[in-house]
Amino acid sequence: MPSSIVVPKKLTTVEQYKAFLDQYDTFLLDCDGVLWHGSHVLEGILETVHFLRKNGKKLVFVTNNSTLSRANYVKKFQKLGIEATEKDIFSSAFATAVYLRNILDFPKDKRVYVIGESGIVDELKDVGIESTGASDDNGVIMTHADFGSIEQDPTIGAVVCGFDLNLNYRKLAKAFTYLNNKEQNAHFILTNDDTTFPAPNGIYPGTGSLAQPLITALNRNPLVMGKPNKPMLDCFFANYHTDPSRTCMVGDRLDTDIDFGVNGNIATLMVLTGVSTEAEAMDPKQPIKPTYIMQSFGDFAKVENA
Amino acid sequence: MPSSIVVPKKLTTVEQYKAFLDQYDTFLLDCDGVLWHGSHVLEGILETVHFLRKNGKKLVFVTNNSTLSRANYVKKFQKLGIEATEKDIFSSAFATAVYLRNILDFPKDKRVYVIGESGIVDELKDVGIESTGASDDNGVIMTHADFGSIEQDPTIGAVVCGFDLNLNYRKLAKAFTYLNNKEQNAHFILTNDDTTFPAPNGIYPGTGSLAQPLITALNRNPLVMGKPNKPMLDCFFANYHTDPSRTCMVGDRLDTDIDFGVNGNIATLMVLTGVSTEAEAMDPKQPIKPTYIMQSFGDFAKVENA
Repeated sequence: MPSSIVVPKKLTTVEQYKAFLDQYDTFLLDCDGVLWHGSHVLEGILETVHFLRKNGKKLVFVTNNSTLSRANYVKKFQKLGIEATEKDIFSSAFATAVYLRNILDFPKDKRVYVIGESGIVDELKDVGIESTGASDDNGVIMTHADFGSIEQDPTIGAVVCGFDLNLNYRKLAKAFTYLNNKEQNAHFILTNDDTTFPAPNGIYPGTGSLAQPLITALNRNPLVMGKPNKPMLDCFFANYHTDPSRTCMVGDRLDTDIDFGVNGNIATLMVLTGVSTEAEAMDPKQPIKPTYIMQSFGDFAKVENA
Repeated sequence: MPSSIVVPKKLTTVEQYKAFLDQYDTFLLDCDGVLWHGSHVLEGILETVHFLRKNGKKLVFVTNNSTLSRANYVKKFQKLGIEATEKDIFSSAFATAVYLRNILDFPKDKRVYVIGESGIVDELKDVGIESTGASDDNGVIMTHADFGSIEQDPTIGAVVCGFDLNLNYRKLAKAFTYLNNKEQNAHFILTNDDTTFPAPNGIYPGTGSLAQPLITALNRNPLVMGKPNKPMLDCFFANYHTDPSRTCMVGDRLDTDIDFGVNGNIATLMVLTGVSTEAEAMDPKQPIKPTYIMQSFGDFAKVENA
């Protein structure tokens, strides 16, 4: 039964929380709006994380942000007081590395051209894939005479595009040149297609926008990894080998988190501590429906104290 | 009678050339594929240009390329041996300046933020419009801490985006910030929407591709100036005051040059020295039809010698 025709079930009592937890072993957790807002951890989250782990539940933190490696995300979690190791973090950069390594069986003699930051480079290196690009062309000034210096590179087997604060024309021209070579047939992968990037002082163009010059000039669509797209979940199961029927996606946004679970045909729990509202989820015209709704993920701490 | 239902008339004899020339006073000329290929001027072009001017015809060279000012285009024409002054050149950068000055009556106390090269900056200056951006942020290296340095600028009344070899994230983030301010209501103008840019060694992403991050992140469409879009022709007539019924667009491409004339409801002459073929123009399924077809614009020289 696809989740899209399910009427969301609201969890409000400790008994309902218990019955829900009995059904699932693994929780994929969106972070901002579920665990924290900015640098403020939500009420009950630390206790909930501790309680669930004590009871043998696996928690995996899922993020579309490709700028940091899992090793650097761990530091962010530590700073906020949430225990986490690299194995608990599933980012779009790591998912992309898993995809190239485990699903595409990326050739040993090929390299990846990266538009993006260190998160992608580090995760590729971690699975034994060499990359080029990334910060190499940061801050380059080009003249029209420099077009001649952009040459085909037969070692490039894929172009990965993620968020890059130092995106510039030279990077786009190189990526275009590699991908426009039909014989080379390089893979074209986007870490995610979020059109905006949330910075502390407002929103700015995101990965899904930055990749558009390539998509338009090439007239070619990339494989898109991050939520709400299915490849991210395929890579999750390729890496973690958990039982899909006992895995639940938890998030605050219908259009990314919940759609992600729906697309992957796993259970979804929407919390009301972030962007989407209960009214939006219950709207008969809303095509994306969570399996469950509850006020806050932190409310599971009440089960321990009950 | 719209040109789109006209069966193109093929001009092959000197008598047909004479009869054609008697009907028009002004010729808008695409350059590459009509006058020259790269740095090679086509046969008969120098003689044709001389002959037509001697007979009182006005020739205006039309280009979507916004990187050079008309003053710098003149040098290119001189190098190829074709006489031209600034008044003979109608570029997308100049058309954008005409549009802001003559059609929008751009406020004296506002400035334009430019993503682009010196052609746009120089043409804006020439019509008395101050600009910022362009080369100011070339080669800048950004860190995540630098988001805070991107601030609203209430003096920005328009963002103009043209081809920019030094496009970078900082420029996109600034343009996005200005255009995303609903109260400021700044104009958003593209010099052209060519998806690729022809460099001597191949094609690369063009203006229509480079503007896509803004279009996607803002979810807003710009006014597009260059061929085949109508604003370029509106600006032409606002600047030259010629009689549209005695004006003919000459070009080698159905999808840009001929479509440009058709969109502006003026006569069109397609030459066979460039991209599009006679078979393509005559194909019953071809929606864009030139009024006339001839082998080469250089063939008009034969009228003088007949």
